[in-house]
Amino acid sequence: MIVQRIVRAALEEDIGTGDVTTEAIVPAGARAEAVILAKEDGVIAGLSVAEAAFRELDPEVRFTALCRDGDRVSRGQTVARVEGRARAILTAERVALNLLQRLSGIATVTARLCEKVRGTKARVVDTRKTTPGLRALEKYAVRAGGGANHRFGLYDAILIKDNHIALAGGVAAAVAAARDRAGHALKVEVEVESLEQLYEALGAGADIILLDNMDPATMRQAAERVGGRAVLEASGRITEATIAEVARTGVDIISVGALTHSVKALDLSLEVIEVRGTMLRGAAPAVGAESAPEDILR
Amino acid sequence: MIVQRIVRAALEEDIGTGDVTTEAIVPAGARAEAVILAKEDGVIAGLSVAEAAFRELDPEVRFTALCRDGDRVSRGQTVARVEGRARAILTAERVALNLLQRLSGIATVTARLCEKVRGTKARVVDTRKTTPGLRALEKYAVRAGGGANHRFGLYDAILIKDNHIALAGGVAAAVAAARDRAGHALKVEVEVESLEQLYEALGAGADIILLDNMDPATMRQAAERVGGRAVLEASGRITEATIAEVARTGVDIISVGALTHSVKALDLSLEVIEVRGTMLRGAAPAVGAESAPEDILR
Amino acid sequence: MIVQRIVRAALEEDIGTGDVTTEAIVPAGARAEAVILAKEDGVIAGLSVAEAAFRELDPEVRFTALCRDGDRVSRGQTVARVEGRARAILTAERVALNLLQRLSGIATVTARLCEKVRGTKARVVDTRKTTPGLRALEKYAVRAGGGANHRFGLYDAILIKDNHIALAGGVAAAVAAARDRAGHALKVEVEVESLEQLYEALGAGADIILLDNMDPATMRQAAERVGGRAVLEASGRITEATIAEVARTGVDIISVGALTHSVKALDLSLEVIEVRGTMLRGAAPAVGAESAPEDILR
Amino acid sequence: MIVQRIVRAALEEDIGTGDVTTEAIVPAGARAEAVILAKEDGVIAGLSVAEAAFRELDPEVRFTALCRDGDRVSRGQTVARVEGRARAILTAERVALNLLQRLSGIATVTARLCEKVRGTKARVVDTRKTTPGLRALEKYAVRAGGGANHRFGLYDAILIKDNHIALAGGVAAAVAAARDRAGHALKVEVEVESLEQLYEALGAGADIILLDNMDPATMRQAAERVGGRAVLEASGRITEATIAEVARTGVDIISVGALTHSVKALDLSLEVIEVRGTMLRGAAPAVGAESAPEDILR
Amino acid sequence: MIVQRIVRAALEEDIGTGDVTTEAIVPAGARAEAVILAKEDGVIAGLSVAEAAFRELDPEVRFTALCRDGDRVSRGQTVARVEGRARAILTAERVALNLLQRLSGIATVTARLCEKVRGTKARVVDTRKTTPGLRALEKYAVRAGGGANHRFGLYDAILIKDNHIALAGGVAAAVAAARDRAGHALKVEVEVESLEQLYEALGAGADIILLDNMDPATMRQAAERVGGRAVLEASGRITEATIAEVARTGVDIISVGALTHSVKALDLSLEVIEVRGTMLRGAAPAVGAESAPEDILR
Amino acid sequence: MIVQRIVRAALEEDIGTGDVTTEAIVPAGARAEAVILAKEDGVIAGLSVAEAAFRELDPEVRFTALCRDGDRVSRGQTVARVEGRARAILTAERVALNLLQRLSGIATVTARLCEKVRGTKARVVDTRKTTPGLRALEKYAVRAGGGANHRFGLYDAILIKDNHIALAGGVAAAVAAARDRAGHALKVEVEVESLEQLYEALGAGADIILLDNMDPATMRQAAERVGGRAVLEASGRITEATIAEVARTGVDIISVGALTHSVKALDLSLEVIEVRGTMLRGAAPAVGAESAPEDILR
Repeated sequence: MIVQRIVRAALEEDIGTGDVTTEAIVPAGARAEAVILAKEDGVIAGLSVAEAAFRELDPEVRFTALCRDGDRVSRGQTVARVEGRARAILTAERVALNLLQRLSGIATVTARLCEKVRGTKARVVDTRKTTPGLRALEKYAVRAGGGANHRFGLYDAILIKDNHIALAGGVAAAVAAARDRAGHALKVEVEVESLEQLYEALGAGADIILLDNMDPATMRQAAERVGGRAVLEASGRITEATIAEVARTGVDIISVGALTHSVKALDLSLEVIEVRGTMLRGAAPAVGAESAPEDILR
Repeated sequence: MIVQRIVRAALEEDIGTGDVTTEAIVPAGARAEAVILAKEDGVIAGLSVAEAAFRELDPEVRFTALCRDGDRVSRGQTVARVEGRARAILTAERVALNLLQRLSGIATVTARLCEKVRGTKARVVDTRKTTPGLRALEKYAVRAGGGANHRFGLYDAILIKDNHIALAGGVAAAVAAARDRAGHALKVEVEVESLEQLYEALGAGADIILLDNMDPATMRQAAERVGGRAVLEASGRITEATIAEVARTGVDIISVGALTHSVKALDLSLEVIEVRGTMLRGAAPAVGAESAPEDILR
Repeated sequence: MIVQRIVRAALEEDIGTGDVTTEAIVPAGARAEAVILAKEDGVIAGLSVAEAAFRELDPEVRFTALCRDGDRVSRGQTVARVEGRARAILTAERVALNLLQRLSGIATVTARLCEKVRGTKARVVDTRKTTPGLRALEKYAVRAGGGANHRFGLYDAILIKDNHIALAGGVAAAVAAARDRAGHALKVEVEVESLEQLYEALGAGADIILLDNMDPATMRQAAERVGGRAVLEASGRITEATIAEVARTGVDIISVGALTHSVKALDLSLEVIEVRGTMLRGAAPAVGAESAPEDILR
Repeated sequence: MIVQRIVRAALEEDIGTGDVTTEAIVPAGARAEAVILAKEDGVIAGLSVAEAAFRELDPEVRFTALCRDGDRVSRGQTVARVEGRARAILTAERVALNLLQRLSGIATVTARLCEKVRGTKARVVDTRKTTPGLRALEKYAVRAGGGANHRFGLYDAILIKDNHIALAGGVAAAVAAARDRAGHALKVEVEVESLEQLYEALGAGADIILLDNMDPATMRQAAERVGGRAVLEASGRITEATIAEVARTGVDIISVGALTHSVKALDLSLEVIEVRGTMLRGAAPAVGAESAPEDILR
Repeated sequence: MIVQRIVRAALEEDIGTGDVTTEAIVPAGARAEAVILAKEDGVIAGLSVAEAAFRELDPEVRFTALCRDGDRVSRGQTVARVEGRARAILTAERVALNLLQRLSGIATVTARLCEKVRGTKARVVDTRKTTPGLRALEKYAVRAGGGANHRFGLYDAILIKDNHIALAGGVAAAVAAARDRAGHALKVEVEVESLEQLYEALGAGADIILLDNMDPATMRQAAERVGGRAVLEASGRITEATIAEVARTGVDIISVGALTHSVKALDLSLEVIEVRGTMLRGAAPAVGAESAPEDILR
Repeated sequence: MIVQRIVRAALEEDIGTGDVTTEAIVPAGARAEAVILAKEDGVIAGLSVAEAAFRELDPEVRFTALCRDGDRVSRGQTVARVEGRARAILTAERVALNLLQRLSGIATVTARLCEKVRGTKARVVDTRKTTPGLRALEKYAVRAGGGANHRFGLYDAILIKDNHIALAGGVAAAVAAARDRAGHALKVEVEVESLEQLYEALGAGADIILLDNMDPATMRQAAERVGGRAVLEASGRITEATIAEVARTGVDIISVGALTHSVKALDLSLEVIEVRGTMLRGAAPAVGAESAPEDILR
């Protein structure tokens, strides 16, 4: 239902009162077959989202994925085939690609980071720095790329950050207050900036401890001292250049905001490869009985 | 109203059934003052969007912008001050920053590209390759960065692309069909891949002609031949490295999809600098008459 | 809440991604005073709806009604005064007038019909032939014009029409089935086309009997025979020319679909009479701190 | 999607918690065949909207249009056939007709005006004086009647009106400000009240010039002077009696607010011509397994 | 449409960003057959609502009701069979049962009360003391249990209560004001606390008179005096122990708020009885082409 | 925002097109003061929800809570005072009470159960057997009564039930699959029916173990064997009569579905104690300038 809601809203935003170009040029009855091509190497994510965009405008569309979410694709490779009403395909194209390119971009960079930590126990996870409205999809793309998800929102885990600690008067007090509130169902995570805070957090019974902007040497020390009594998360401007070293410190998870806040879309394009019934409608008025409902809008 | 709808949806996505951390640790009555700091150089856009996020959770919040949308900021500079209910500020923080960082990222790269075309008549414009749901905001950020907007959607201008031309049986036929449909209110733009198509488009009376993936020499020829009889748009993988040369060919506008499809968020952070009334609530149950409505959710 | 929902939807439909004209020409800080003038004689209805349209875009607008809903106005008379942000007034103008003109048009014709039945016991009532989405407002306008309301929808009264009778196998069977279902809370009305059906309806215990397309002589007979045992409603293409004669037959209510299905808008216009702070913004970019939120949209 | 949203909202408005009459009288399993008849001459528009209303309540309904949108129909002619669940047909009848009658009324008057300007180059266009919520449908009906559409809203074209000119300090200043803002994508139209303003608009580079309330002689002069350098639009209380003369002045388009603000619904009716399975349910309680979902509501 | 809206909202509330348990454990392709069992005696209501919950997540689900709404079921009896995608069945289970149990609970107690008044003319009816958001369903459940419905809301009948009488200055004044406003379409009911008020209400022409918290003897007197000139409703803390006596006083309807404000859910459970294709997915990543759309959420 | 959405939906459900009774009898300008009285002993919850209902119809209403959520009240005690527009108070009364009574009913029974487990370490928690649409409020009411919350939905914790175990092929396999999927952020809970399953769950690393329908002796054994290595939850038809014994077995939490699936509303009533400006409007039409917006609806 979330996919459908996002796709519908995106189509309404783009189509507004009607795709004037397509309606002027493409006959209502024309059918087309198109392919989605990769124009650079990467990892695909969001095929069913792209399909939903086409299906919203043509419930009978045939969408054939030629790879699966999480698969690597190479430049020039055909990712999917779409066959259906020509108008629907052209009108939905941009929304389908906007979503598929973004999600594939996320999966691609996630896969690259996962590759770099291979051989360590560290897992790459995302953050809440996602695009407003698209969080569920973006977190899915992270999984498709081989990463794991951090909490989905403010509601499904407790994460005590520096501002909370300042307001609570210290790490221990904050963790105690949170634990009381968390009940038995939620985990308590706390962000620490030093080994002193780390010990305090451990003593207060934190389930997860986030090491904020620590250098690798300190992280290594942290991992040794904790010895598995809590999950350790490394965070803070970790890049492709530094992630391998961080992973080797012994932390359990490494969260990377850039996975979702600074996405580079994967380059994909849609190309129509065959059409049927495309004769222009000539002088006939655009109001005949054969006009499909969407003709009404413009 | 669009801003409010986006901000509300983003807050609902993030908060869900409640910000369990903040509610556990921050007393309902506590007040805080915070600043939003630039952590790298850039151009700001979206201050009123960020303000709307805080205001949604605390209608009495005082948000003081210390610069204006479109202003350049330097690393370390304070961008805005927020004063209000501590819970509202902490709970809205991520949504406010997610939006402000993305829009500022767009404005920053737009400004950089505009700088490179300075001295030519070319204007930098965006495309429809925007984030689903955020188009109006992202197009605003392009303007804040000094760029201009291309059409907002499929409904407010006609842009005939290669697939349309193939379906119509040629540039001239496509333009004619579109012109008939456009009426007097909409402009007709057509994408061409060669000078031959350009002449055909010109002859058919296109208002705007998009030169798709042409090399600078051909673009220059095109500009000379058209001589102002139509608006010329250059498009196709134009980068910071190549835009200046494209601009010097004499085209009128240069559209850059990466302005919005591959955003690098501007690094900003929120820091609480003062708090009042933050004593922890001790053993008192979270159900007192002083509990604010949002307390009900978790 | 219904008024607000209708006004918001109408503004979103009209404004879309922004009022490009007003934003280009009217400075964000400008203020204006305008009047709404009657350009023909009529009865006003919907002042608070018009006010809501302006208030939606400028919560601090001052809207002063110079007459009340239901009042007659003459050509040239000032109906209301609006004072507030110039942009808000110009942008909301069309929606405010579209609604106010339509509702006043309904009130005007209703008042004219009521005038014609004066002195009889007959009341003029509306039907369900209203504009989709605006029923509550249009029924209000009928009341403002002096008429009364028939049922609001399919849910709040039982009205058995010819098709129902055919399906039920007769007037008596239909009334009996309806009475069983209606419980104690809803009235049962039945449409009849002859005196025979009228007697059958009366015998079956109908509360209200609709005389469909009967001539005045037959209606008079009907009224005499019923003698107050049921409410009598006359219906079917009753016009300004014929309503007085119908009213004199002794029926209780006369329903007129044209009250709402064929509205002639009352001619009203908005004129700006004073402005402040309207200097054009010159070369300054549209991104300053003084920009109001709505500036973001285009 | 817009059609579906309008139809759903209209059905919810009308049905509320249930069609008590139909549920009391028509068995859940009954099927019916009905026809939609023209009760006066006119032009049809909105067949697929009417179909959508029936389909919303019975996804398997068979709706057969016997003419096409834009066709003329004569009194007594059958417009469409509907076959499906009897309850769905009766319950959706009013909404389907309310929309079809209104849109056909618009198409009918548009066709009449187009007939009167035949032989001139002038096209009949609509305005923004549409029914709130129904603009897209009403503009479609204008096209079905042979007219063309003016802008869809405040967002897709620039139209500078008298109040804007007053605020800008003159026609030339207003056009210049608008042109700057419009970018390359939108046309700039300006309303003028005299030939002096016309020349000023022309000099400032307006794409379209609206001649407001001018007499035919002045319009003719305007058309001669402009000589094709801008599109000319005539506007202001143009009626069936005067439109032919206006068209002969040489203007390009004639806009008529009354097309949509003062609609006279085309008289249509639905008649059930055959039923199956209509035995009354006798003493059986209304709660059997055969009860369709909509039975739950009342 | 109301059923669908309630079911969707309930599923969104429960599922949020995804059913993590089911997605972790149940393969996307697995199918299951399950039964809904009665775990205590009662009357069933809401089978089509439960079906709608499963169908929302699996449009191809086969739901076979083994009894009808309104039927009595015994402990251990199978109420319905569900066959479809295993994930859909497990994920929708709680929402389907929550609704079915609540509605069946209402039908059960209604049937028990109806049983007690059998042989009298009194009918058991509900009130507006329903669960916010579920009124239409709860009133349906009352009918399924053999009861009848009082008004659906504040809009479809007039019911003058003590506070209204106080504000109007007496029963007669209140009834007169209401009758004037009610027009011909709505019934007027008034609440009275004494025989004096009853006579006043009768004289003022009330259609229905509610006897508030009267003892049986007074009710009997009331019934005798009214003698059928108005419908009499008994109300006020009537329980299973007292309803028979109240019914014998001669009142027409007995309204019981507890039917809906204090529901005891009927005990039902869902048990999976057969599964197919349930092998765990082993090491394969959850991102394959076979992944169903809902997989995207978590 | 959730509170506001629920209250608005409830008001729209109840008010529909208007509160005909109140509008007929209570002048638009009248003001009233009312009290909410407890008519039986209990624990209050939802005061701010009730306040929101009144405030939605009168933004200036003064609502003074005389106790706090979680407080015990006695029969006859005044719970809150409401002062504002008389129409708003009467029209919102039912919605405010429906919500306040339900939430207070939940808090009351929760408090009673908490009382019975006092002195043990066991906490009383709720389940997902809540009213569709009201879960967040009902879980709040449980906290107000002194209980704690189990997971909010299928998304924020993993709970493996019997059907999942059957599908996975055993407790250990199910827990392993879940743990893999849960990542570091979510806890894994599993339902067991025997001590054997308990040991298997413990070995597989479950965080929480639900003892389903076990007798107290077995629970005691379970608690001894687990010895704090996992949280133990008792579940399955636990009543007021049995909860104390269950609590003494050493389990950590006791979940009770009846807290929310079988609510008995707390008996509360609203009584108007003073009115101002209540003269009936006499013969004046209901269309004057003083008419408030809500007057438009009926």
